Amino acid sequence: MSVFQVELKKIVDDSYDIETGFELEEKLIRDLRNGLVGGVRKFAIITDSIVKDLYAVPIYQMLLEAGYQADLFVFEAGEKQKTRKTKEELEDAMLAKGYRRDCCILAVGGGVVTDLAGFVAGTYGRGVPFINYATTLLAAADASVGGKTAVDTPLATNLIGLFNQPKKVYLDIATWKTLPERQLSSGMAETIKHAILADESFFHYLEEHMDEILANEREACEHIAQVNCQIKYQVVMKDERESGLREILNLGHTVGRAIETVSDYRLLHGEAVSIGLVAEAELALRLGYISEDQKQAVEALLQKAGLPTAIPHNIDREALVQKLYTDKKVRDGKLRFVVQKGIGSVVEFQEGVFATPIEESVAREIIMKMKEI
Amino acid sequence: MSVFQVELKKIVDDSYDIETGFELEEKLIRDLRNGLVGGVRKFAIITDSIVKDLYAVPIYQMLLEAGYQADLFVFEAGEKQKTRKTKEELEDAMLAKGYRRDCCILAVGGGVVTDLAGFVAGTYGRGVPFINYATTLLAAADASVGGKTAVDTPLATNLIGLFNQPKKVYLDIATWKTLPERQLSSGMAETIKHAILADESFFHYLEEHMDEILANEREACEHIAQVNCQIKYQVVMKDERESGLREILNLGHTVGRAIETVSDYRLLHGEAVSIGLVAEAELALRLGYISEDQKQAVEALLQKAGLPTAIPHNIDREALVQKLYTDKKVRDGKLRFVVQKGIGSVVEFQEGVFATPIEESVAREIIMKMKEI
Repeated sequence: MSVFQVELKKIVDDSYDIETGFELEEKLIRDLRNGLVGGVRKFAIITDSIVKDLYAVPIYQMLLEAGYQADLFVFEAGEKQKTRKTKEELEDAMLAKGYRRDCCILAVGGGVVTDLAGFVAGTYGRGVPFINYATTLLAAADASVGGKTAVDTPLATNLIGLFNQPKKVYLDIATWKTLPERQLSSGMAETIKHAILADESFFHYLEEHMDEILANEREACEHIAQVNCQIKYQVVMKDERESGLREILNLGHTVGRAIETVSDYRLLHGEAVSIGLVAEAELALRLGYISEDQKQAVEALLQKAGLPTAIPHNIDREALVQKLYTDKKVRDGKLRFVVQKGIGSVVEFQEGVFATPIEESVAREIIMKMKEI
Repeated sequence: MSVFQVELKKIVDDSYDIETGFELEEKLIRDLRNGLVGGVRKFAIITDSIVKDLYAVPIYQMLLEAGYQADLFVFEAGEKQKTRKTKEELEDAMLAKGYRRDCCILAVGGGVVTDLAGFVAGTYGRGVPFINYATTLLAAADASVGGKTAVDTPLATNLIGLFNQPKKVYLDIATWKTLPERQLSSGMAETIKHAILADESFFHYLEEHMDEILANEREACEHIAQVNCQIKYQVVMKDERESGLREILNLGHTVGRAIETVSDYRLLHGEAVSIGLVAEAELALRLGYISEDQKQAVEALLQKAGLPTAIPHNIDREALVQKLYTDKKVRDGKLRFVVQKGIGSVVEFQEGVFATPIEESVAREIIMKMKEI
């Protein structure tokens, strides 16, 4: 018997910049010229059927004009396409076009596109660089920090994937104006969640500037894009592998993800999270961590953003209760919830523990008593 | 316009041990008890239909007896099963059994099992730990160092995957005795390749001890398992991302992989590599880097290991020439080869460049003139 020690200790630097602004396409090309991804000359642009003509084709043409090789790889828009099958189709299309390891993937779109493209990049030729050009508020709030990439499977959302950091993220606020109103509102849910769990003054800022944000006014949009990044970064940086602190980003998501699934994705992610935030604010109220006024302030802000705060009539509430058990925080068969503490903070139950077991009967009662729309 | 800097610099320690010996099952259980993978209690044993009853079931039973939870996830044996589909089936089976992030994957088998299981581990819940219990010489020679995991696709072998390091590798030499003779010989091809490219005295050791190795004599087997690890580690450690030096491990593989594919995997990987080593020794001879005697020594050693050194009659040699272009080393449409330099070394064409462009006409002539079996 003998033992051979494989020493593999090294310093990894995955740092990257998030650039926020209006119409960043030319900046992207300049960055590439300045060596953002070294000497790479081939770009696989991954996008969806909606974003394609709006933003991906113009970027594709600019790449060609700048002397780069590029191809568009397009999948049908929608969370339902975030599957292993779509990943496989993108890979096969890239292989057929001769893409090898010397390429870079450029994701142009919202969170579904960046989640999927980042995952493709992570396993293509055992890893090629990727860049995110984010065209939605949701991508700005949620997908641009943290390096989480994944696909959904029939049995679980986001359970197959990897941590993979982009070389750079562009948050082009000018693109938000082409978002359908419902999508823009949906994106606000994660922003409001960030305010609730980490920043009371940001919560008040949102209360005061919601109209400007929804009207795509530049200053307000840049501000929320930046604060979103800051809040998420502060949480994620301290806990890259999602062991403890990072669970606080799950606020509203325990109920939110369950209702999203039970609605068969007819509810947008942010709409589902909004309903989840209301349900979980009610939990915080019952546990004595927020006041009735604070709960109402949460509901009012969500409504101001155009988000639902009650459960659609066609949702089977009992199925919703059962679906809670597919949550990643479930441990030893027990539901666990993150709980807000006033506005701008969450409860730390023990050192480094931010989720607490909740009896099914309590969760059921909250869900059964919620208003219906 | 504003820029937010995401700082993500950290020290990563992926070091692990490779333990070589006879019947290491009990050692594995002891290591788990001693915290090899922390407090993990759930083990997903991934294995193939051949290895299952021989080694995976006994390990499964030992895990249960030791108080761990465990399940067997079995796929049909063979390189042809190393696909995204098999990965998906394994994932779905694990999800259905309730496996979440708090598990460890235990790969029990040869290179196909460890490649596939390591890839599943890398993307399951965005990464769970894995352990390799290797039951073939090929896994000992090739799959235990380097962290390469992957699946094949219709258009390319090993192009979808990731670098993922196991927590520990067990090389159980006692398992080699159950290998079919053809498989054991196949495993010798990578061992002989290592000797050719890095260690002349190891080459002579193999010439002198081949009978003992094929008879599974303990001392000789342990020795070759260890030297394999050392050689591969020295190459891989210096070049983890396979940019330059690591290409030398491709010796014999430019022709080898092509012939493996053209044979539709009727040739085992090592058999194909053996034929590739002969073809590429002929290339080295023509380029003046080895003598006729040295070329014959390579052929003789491969034959002594029971490996083919000529091209099977049912191989379409023209198709083989064309298949060379799917090689990962191809650059700007040009074939590139690693070239051996005497016995125990390879040619460094420029600093850090170990592959050289070769005209198709030269490659074709070598392939067309090879003997037939």
